[in-house]
Amino acid sequence: MTDRLEQQFAFLREVEKLKSVTRATPIHDASRPENSAEHSWTLALYALVLADQAAPGVDALRAVKMLLIHDIVEIDVGDVPIHSAGGTAHSSADIQAAELTAATRIFSLLPKDMADEFQALWEEFEAAETPTAIYAKSLDRAQPVLLNHQSGGGSWIDYDVTWDQLETRVGSKIARGLPGVWDWVKTRIRPWFADRGL
Amino acid sequence: MTDRLEQQFAFLREVEKLKSVTRATPIHDASRPENSAEHSWTLALYALVLADQAAPGVDALRAVKMLLIHDIVEIDVGDVPIHSAGGTAHSSADIQAAELTAATRIFSLLPKDMADEFQALWEEFEAAETPTAIYAKSLDRAQPVLLNHQSGGGSWIDYDVTWDQLETRVGSKIARGLPGVWDWVKTRIRPWFADRGL
Repeated sequence: MTDRLEQQFAFLREVEKLKSVTRATPIHDASRPENSAEHSWTLALYALVLADQAAPGVDALRAVKMLLIHDIVEIDVGDVPIHSAGGTAHSSADIQAAELTAATRIFSLLPKDMADEFQALWEEFEAAETPTAIYAKSLDRAQPVLLNHQSGGGSWIDYDVTWDQLETRVGSKIARGLPGVWDWVKTRIRPWFADRGL
Repeated sequence: MTDRLEQQFAFLREVEKLKSVTRATPIHDASRPENSAEHSWTLALYALVLADQAAPGVDALRAVKMLLIHDIVEIDVGDVPIHSAGGTAHSSADIQAAELTAATRIFSLLPKDMADEFQALWEEFEAAETPTAIYAKSLDRAQPVLLNHQSGGGSWIDYDVTWDQLETRVGSKIARGLPGVWDWVKTRIRPWFADRGL
């Protein structure tokens, strides 16, 4: 198993770098930006804890695996904030192409069978067509909203986000996989925007 | 499901605080200390990636769940470095009692069925008697060793750790669940200590 171990540890050593990728959302006490490694940890916990809110056909443990690896491409590409460039940068063709190249480079560090499995998981997440990927994507949209709210506004302030923009860019994506969760979240965060005339 | 959602989000909001608990190990480029949330992410990935190195009877996905929650008690208790107080503080009765109190407080934020499940998972991990818990514990010892090595020495320097101390405090625990992994790790890191006469 030594050759496999070499490859497994080459990958595990490389992904340590995700701890240096910062996001637009601050952590709970607004003391610093969140990084993509700890964000991924939170999302894996979200997938476990909210499993009974998921639609039929969702495999919550598969979603955990997806969410553990979903941002690894940012080691090469960086995080593209959802509200940057008027909300358009996140899903641009350039970014998507760069992320695919990064996924292939990083997952290829693993033994071939695991590289194929992780690449397929990542592509399933990105495509957001299976129930499990839709669930995982909804969680990935929900957590930053709650963390922005917890920290006092976070990237909503930095990017002058209005309530309509939040509903369009984020709320609709949460509601796609988790309509009950979006209803709950909406009730809690709507006043933050209303209080500021946004 | 609204009452459940309240409880699920109370827990998910509380655990965000784990991002503020710093560890003795620096991140890959030695630019700052690792925190316990991103450490937990790395370990969940370790559990996935090294699953084929595990002993018979190990449930790797159960280990992922264990490792996602294993350090949540540190929100109340803080991280106790493995090499602090001559290697004795980590498993002291005082710390263990404080961690049990913390586990009960934090997991009790969840709906009762999930609180019971998470508490049982955490206690299984702490007891380190089942194959899955032994596997998870071995990973929890292996990752800081490799991260210290990657960052140039890390907490080995801060705590004047010798090779014999590392073998006793850490190596034996890695070898318990993953003897092949410890053999591989030992070969890579032994020179760091030998070069320094440690």
